[in-house]
Amino acid sequence: MNRNGHMKITTRSIELQTSGFTHIIDITPQLQELMLNDQFNEGFVLVSAIGSTTGITTIEYEPGLVKHDISEMLDKLAPYGVNYRHNKTWGDDNGAAHLRSSLVGTSQTFPFKDGKLLLGTWQQIVFIDFDTRPRSREIVVQIIGRP
Amino acid sequence: MNRNGHMKITTRSIELQTSGFTHIIDITPQLQELMLNDQFNEGFVLVSAIGSTTGITTIEYEPGLVKHDISEMLDKLAPYGVNYRHNKTWGDDNGAAHLRSSLVGTSQTFPFKDGKLLLGTWQQIVFIDFDTRPRSREIVVQIIGRP
Amino acid sequence: MNRNGHMKITTRSIELQTSGFTHIIDITPQLQELMLNDQFNEGFVLVSAIGSTTGITTIEYEPGLVKHDISEMLDKLAPYGVNYRHNKTWGDDNGAAHLRSSLVGTSQTFPFKDGKLLLGTWQQIVFIDFDTRPRSREIVVQIIGRP
Repeated sequence: MNRNGHMKITTRSIELQTSGFTHIIDITPQLQELMLNDQFNEGFVLVSAIGSTTGITTIEYEPGLVKHDISEMLDKLAPYGVNYRHNKTWGDDNGAAHLRSSLVGTSQTFPFKDGKLLLGTWQQIVFIDFDTRPRSREIVVQIIGRP
Repeated sequence: MNRNGHMKITTRSIELQTSGFTHIIDITPQLQELMLNDQFNEGFVLVSAIGSTTGITTIEYEPGLVKHDISEMLDKLAPYGVNYRHNKTWGDDNGAAHLRSSLVGTSQTFPFKDGKLLLGTWQQIVFIDFDTRPRSREIVVQIIGRP
Repeated sequence: MNRNGHMKITTRSIELQTSGFTHIIDITPQLQELMLNDQFNEGFVLVSAIGSTTGITTIEYEPGLVKHDISEMLDKLAPYGVNYRHNKTWGDDNGAAHLRSSLVGTSQTFPFKDGKLLLGTWQQIVFIDFDTRPRSREIVVQIIGRP
């Protein structure tokens, strides 16, 4: 039997309400659920956040890192409340959010097998909203693999 | 009908002339065109820049960010004109370019559906040349999906 | 002949012993070997490190960058030996390792064709161990492509 004879692709999405200012949300359970719903066994999950003030990465999802340390690190590089040239272009106040997004990246791909994401025990996939106000966000989740 | 019965793969490239020093170029239109030329409907576009002084990310492509803010942020981390150990190894002067490239990353994957890249309205895919001189560059664009 | 009629997927892994503290290891030869063993000609290689204190990126693998410059850049952002909130949560001492991992990213995808990874001459794929002690590490390598 050619176990690779049934490669398929699906495109789904996750919607989130966020509060901005480097708000970090664990999306691992939703990703795991989408994969099972579409009956994939083995393949790639591409997680791609819509918007130029967003981020996708992995982190140990505990409050010390998520609510303090990540923000303090990024404050050194791209502090909020500074008058960036971006802010002058548009009358916006979110230059810091764009800079953080370009550095962290808005999409990442993860492997799964036997219907399970291959991650470390303390490694969660997170969405980050860097913007300076609450937003409704969409994350595209595209899966290529075999059942 | 199994709409996933026709998964295919193509490998293309984009060539660019750049001026270096964190030169940021919007490549979204070329990517969109390659996808349509190869008659893909739904899948992954892998965008991978050749060379260890390059970067691929997304940004709102407006001059404030592209010509000023990104460079100022990266100057804090890996300024040009500093005598890095890399420069001593080779007699090069581009240690800053290598550091920026390793941090931003040289490849990223994006989803598309109905023949369109799934991005935010203000979110463009960009190539960045971090090197310290003009270069001819190649970006590999590999697409896996269905027609 | 439909050269795309045989898309397949394999999941492999690389195991490494590391010494931590931003230990950078060139894994390009192992990746190249896995691809040839599984008889792939063209496709995506997804390289995903297990663990929230790891990183995957590309770099010119020479000692100046690998043993000095990368560490000095990251020391500005997330120095070792600082009392992060993460350390207070767990009694750990590796907050810096988590921050570096979230910034660099733990997975990246690369294209190959004619059985060869498409990289620059001076561009190697590296695993980075940011943790504060020696570790046994696993990197998942998943390949989707055609023979």
